Amino acid sequence: MRMFRNDYSEGAAPRIMDALVATNDEQCVGYTEGDPHCERARRLILDVCGLDEGEADVQFCVGGTSANVIGVTGMLRDWEGVICTRDAHINVHETGAVAACGRTVLPTDDADGFLSPEGAERVYAFQTSCGRHMTRPAAVYVTNATELGGVWDTARLDAICDWAHERGLRVFLDGARLASALTSEGNDVTLSHIAHTVDAFYLGGTKNGMLFGEAMVIRDERLREAFPFLVKERGGLVAKGRLLGVQFEAAFERGEGDAEAPYWSMARHANRMAADLRAGLVGLGFEPYGSSPSNQQFFVVSPAQQAAFEQAVGAETFYVLDDGRKVVRFVTSWATSRGDVDDLLEFAATIA
Amino acid sequence: MRMFRNDYSEGAAPRIMDALVATNDEQCVGYTEGDPHCERARRLILDVCGLDEGEADVQFCVGGTSANVIGVTGMLRDWEGVICTRDAHINVHETGAVAACGRTVLPTDDADGFLSPEGAERVYAFQTSCGRHMTRPAAVYVTNATELGGVWDTARLDAICDWAHERGLRVFLDGARLASALTSEGNDVTLSHIAHTVDAFYLGGTKNGMLFGEAMVIRDERLREAFPFLVKERGGLVAKGRLLGVQFEAAFERGEGDAEAPYWSMARHANRMAADLRAGLVGLGFEPYGSSPSNQQFFVVSPAQQAAFEQAVGAETFYVLDDGRKVVRFVTSWATSRGDVDDLLEFAATIA
Amino acid sequence: MRMFRNDYSEGAAPRIMDALVATNDEQCVGYTEGDPHCERARRLILDVCGLDEGEADVQFCVGGTSANVIGVTGMLRDWEGVICTRDAHINVHETGAVAACGRTVLPTDDADGFLSPEGAERVYAFQTSCGRHMTRPAAVYVTNATELGGVWDTARLDAICDWAHERGLRVFLDGARLASALTSEGNDVTLSHIAHTVDAFYLGGTKNGMLFGEAMVIRDERLREAFPFLVKERGGLVAKGRLLGVQFEAAFERGEGDAEAPYWSMARHANRMAADLRAGLVGLGFEPYGSSPSNQQFFVVSPAQQAAFEQAVGAETFYVLDDGRKVVRFVTSWATSRGDVDDLLEFAATIA
Amino acid sequence: MRMFRNDYSEGAAPRIMDALVATNDEQCVGYTEGDPHCERARRLILDVCGLDEGEADVQFCVGGTSANVIGVTGMLRDWEGVICTRDAHINVHETGAVAACGRTVLPTDDADGFLSPEGAERVYAFQTSCGRHMTRPAAVYVTNATELGGVWDTARLDAICDWAHERGLRVFLDGARLASALTSEGNDVTLSHIAHTVDAFYLGGTKNGMLFGEAMVIRDERLREAFPFLVKERGGLVAKGRLLGVQFEAAFERGEGDAEAPYWSMARHANRMAADLRAGLVGLGFEPYGSSPSNQQFFVVSPAQQAAFEQAVGAETFYVLDDGRKVVRFVTSWATSRGDVDDLLEFAATIA
Repeated sequence: MRMFRNDYSEGAAPRIMDALVATNDEQCVGYTEGDPHCERARRLILDVCGLDEGEADVQFCVGGTSANVIGVTGMLRDWEGVICTRDAHINVHETGAVAACGRTVLPTDDADGFLSPEGAERVYAFQTSCGRHMTRPAAVYVTNATELGGVWDTARLDAICDWAHERGLRVFLDGARLASALTSEGNDVTLSHIAHTVDAFYLGGTKNGMLFGEAMVIRDERLREAFPFLVKERGGLVAKGRLLGVQFEAAFERGEGDAEAPYWSMARHANRMAADLRAGLVGLGFEPYGSSPSNQQFFVVSPAQQAAFEQAVGAETFYVLDDGRKVVRFVTSWATSRGDVDDLLEFAATIA
Repeated sequence: MRMFRNDYSEGAAPRIMDALVATNDEQCVGYTEGDPHCERARRLILDVCGLDEGEADVQFCVGGTSANVIGVTGMLRDWEGVICTRDAHINVHETGAVAACGRTVLPTDDADGFLSPEGAERVYAFQTSCGRHMTRPAAVYVTNATELGGVWDTARLDAICDWAHERGLRVFLDGARLASALTSEGNDVTLSHIAHTVDAFYLGGTKNGMLFGEAMVIRDERLREAFPFLVKERGGLVAKGRLLGVQFEAAFERGEGDAEAPYWSMARHANRMAADLRAGLVGLGFEPYGSSPSNQQFFVVSPAQQAAFEQAVGAETFYVLDDGRKVVRFVTSWATSRGDVDDLLEFAATIA
Repeated sequence: MRMFRNDYSEGAAPRIMDALVATNDEQCVGYTEGDPHCERARRLILDVCGLDEGEADVQFCVGGTSANVIGVTGMLRDWEGVICTRDAHINVHETGAVAACGRTVLPTDDADGFLSPEGAERVYAFQTSCGRHMTRPAAVYVTNATELGGVWDTARLDAICDWAHERGLRVFLDGARLASALTSEGNDVTLSHIAHTVDAFYLGGTKNGMLFGEAMVIRDERLREAFPFLVKERGGLVAKGRLLGVQFEAAFERGEGDAEAPYWSMARHANRMAADLRAGLVGLGFEPYGSSPSNQQFFVVSPAQQAAFEQAVGAETFYVLDDGRKVVRFVTSWATSRGDVDDLLEFAATIA
Repeated sequence: MRMFRNDYSEGAAPRIMDALVATNDEQCVGYTEGDPHCERARRLILDVCGLDEGEADVQFCVGGTSANVIGVTGMLRDWEGVICTRDAHINVHETGAVAACGRTVLPTDDADGFLSPEGAERVYAFQTSCGRHMTRPAAVYVTNATELGGVWDTARLDAICDWAHERGLRVFLDGARLASALTSEGNDVTLSHIAHTVDAFYLGGTKNGMLFGEAMVIRDERLREAFPFLVKERGGLVAKGRLLGVQFEAAFERGEGDAEAPYWSMARHANRMAADLRAGLVGLGFEPYGSSPSNQQFFVVSPAQQAAFEQAVGAETFYVLDDGRKVVRFVTSWATSRGDVDDLLEFAATIA
């Protein structure tokens, strides 16, 4: 049975892999600078963001942790910190990478994956209550889709951005699964709106059909100056920069007969599979945990069911509830087929 | 009226100042190495701790933040973190100094200033639930007296130390106000017990009558090797090392007719003044916040009272409660007299 | 004309690319842990190193800067430094990545790319002449092939390793171009000898036919404990760990009719092309700079020739000599053909 | 016999100590903020620098390593480095403190203690020759008096400052012994000129009669914003901030009948003692090493003489020459008397 463990279990989606193979023998200068693929990918991305040349930089790096660390620490001076939710990837799943670069993560008590102005304000008010004895907040970090599969709507996103900008804080958006968010059912946020609202964000590749790589769009001046150096200093620069250019070019190039560029159609497919999976599991009586319209689906199950799902499809456990039940996650991707979902539902029926 | 703002508002206690003046013209080699005062202070401290030569190192540094940063980061490897309460000084009042050295602070939800095995276990269990993707806890940080004036008893201290040691974690005790804790009413912990139980701790000087300086007692091998270098690298080494030796020598030298060494009698006096202050304020109907037997006293007051106390005696505000009332702090020291307390109580009566 | 700018100008060598394509649809767990390709690659590498299971760890990371930073900083405590030549990659071409992790690079005045015991001793003697006021050397960093194309012989390598080990220093070998070194003409060092002599080293993939990735062999206990966490914390962990496993498996798997595994034959080919290129240029009267038997060739040329070579084949300039002449570099790879070399020589004849 | 080991062998000069004793019982708020002594010291220092309120900040910190690290790292972004001479204190005697904060020290080959535009240009040209792959120089660090006792003249200082400013680099001047430099014979640099030329510098206290402490004058905007937070984060903030205010106030307050403020007269005295010592030793046939008009005097002696001087007056050895002779240092201070110098010369005569 196909695993539902993650959206990075396979190699690359066919369109991406084909582009890598097709360009394999070309010679390019390295490091994402000056090769035609990176340059074209940059233009395609600026375009889809509705940004003019010069309004923003598009930069590439090797993976999500790199992108987060470079983005966040490039926005912060030594004594400054970043506000995020308690479940934020940078707070819990990156081995203290932000602290390893000397900066402080300041988590709120927001428990649903969305950073709220109220939660952020509590942290901000506290951290500015004792002058220089405290890390000074200077940025906020949000994820879309969130770590819990949630998708920001425009009003919610604008609210936190307004809150931040009113206080002089920068906004960094982790877009490891941004494609899934923006193609999810009910989404009302446009990429262009994000690009003109947050100060920097990235379009994730690793979790949307590429071998690896993230493309960061940067309007913030401080980060624009920092990125080219930080990406090297923090180990995120790829010698064969072509790999990033070729993949993002293929992802954002709309081919003959494409209703939309592969970057979006791959994510839309994953969301559809996730919706089918969710509907199926709910139909079988399983209890969803939270409400995710994106490609991660969380369910509350018994310990026995958790063990069975882990064994069968590699589902990971995210939380253990106070009553002993467990929250497991199923993830779909470009590689998930309707048949794979059916197989999972068939199995689930046996343990429902 | 005398301020009750802090225990570091004045210069040095007379015995300490006298010793500095008396030795001022002596020539000493620098950096706390090899001068007779540091050497003698080391022996006096080992002695009062019941430690043999070689069982532990005694090292000096310039202040509390230095001591905490050196102690904590000297116990941790790059990817490791320290568990502490949410109110721990290293978590909230040192401008991210631990993160500035690349390490992560892992706060629990303990709200009373005491790190509990339950709180620590929750953090530990979470932080070890996802392998190397998470900062690995490797030490715990406790303070005695706590940031809220609390004093550890032996059972409580042993419980957290046992919990830590069973998991291979080191224990660091911030003793900025250890003298106050150990001379507080009802205290049952001996210095020797601490010295033989925790892996490193320090005897605070700044907040107990010295101009500045802390003396760290280190049994942990990793920190023993690290301290001499870290204290220089982190900027905590004092060129005129004599200043630390002379002060700690004077503090731990029991003179003719002394019932105990000045280090203890100064703290005992401060505690007595704090107890009088507490009793007086309670008698006037003020509501204590928590139960501190040491030289910091916290009271819940109205905003108007807070403003009055801040104006009159420099009392600092620590929390704002949900109902708008404020928690203010009064601190006594070797320099506080019974008359100072009476003055404060007289004033308090006018706003009670 | 084919560029001779670098050995990472193309994509992957055919055998590597084929393996990536062939395994593309397999599902693997991520992060190089537990997938069959990484496991098999590990066993192949231990085997070719003559190491038993348990004698050493084989770990993967994303690129050379990551490998160097993780390897070097994982060997050093906060106050320790690494001795290397002045031209060492970590000293000049990694944007201060070692310092960014809080450690100090201690360059010698060795000018030929080889770290000498004499040069290292001068640095060591100086750095240990003032106790804790100086960064303490704790490791040495060598590269094979060196930044100038040189190849270590056994006597030379043993001399620096003995020097280091006698003083308690660890040895880290940067093997970004180790394959080229070990297959170069006249080389007398075996991989097994390296594996049993240095404390950690890596087998470079990026510069030897892979898309990216390096495989580190670690005997040093301190680094063995550190690597799994540091690779995540420093941003060097690849989500699709399969990519590293599949590539190194393909590189070290000796197929039907292979005289040796592709990892070696690719490098041997590059060396052969470099030797032809060198012989040809020398025949045309060009002056070689130093004596490199590996896939990087350095020549002293006039400014006009430099401009012509840069324009024609992307040759990079490494030094400007006092007389104004320039040292340019030509690099060959698995992708360089005999025809490409002929084209270059034909062009060179026109500007000789 | 009085030691000539260092200028921080004694406690504080009488005027300083008297001020500490006289103000000992006053209550002050802490951390150098808002107490009248720090405020008055700030005004006195601005005044003596010829700076208006608002043109520069005056900030205090605990010691020289703190001052250097805060000053240098507060001028640099993460990927930037500081150019200095190879003997610069930050390069060799601070245990890698700058690297510990993630920044890179870029030493020139200047061997006489003075950073030259030529030496700096060589480093700058190299470090900017390979884009973001190299640490970008963004500041220079000079010391006055230098580590070898040299004193900058106006032309020399202006030359390096002009060189730096033309390239957009900031200038930081380590003034641990600035008082000695500015009161040395032949000095033509005014404090006001320094204050208006470099971007930040400090007036050393530790080595000029105080117990400890340095006062930094900052015109650079980046450092002005950074200092208040960095001084806490890096452990350089003194809880009893009064100590710094009181000492600098006493040092810069010109009393009845003072020809100049004690800060200058103490240094002038030390210089006079050093000149007498130098003349005497030269008269005895000892060979000076370099030419220092300040309070550090270097001489080339035989190993036997070195041992004798070390034993007799604590002279430290700075270099071992190729012929085996040694360079020893004698240091004078406010505490050195003419009789002390005579004693030393009398002793020297016995081993000349």
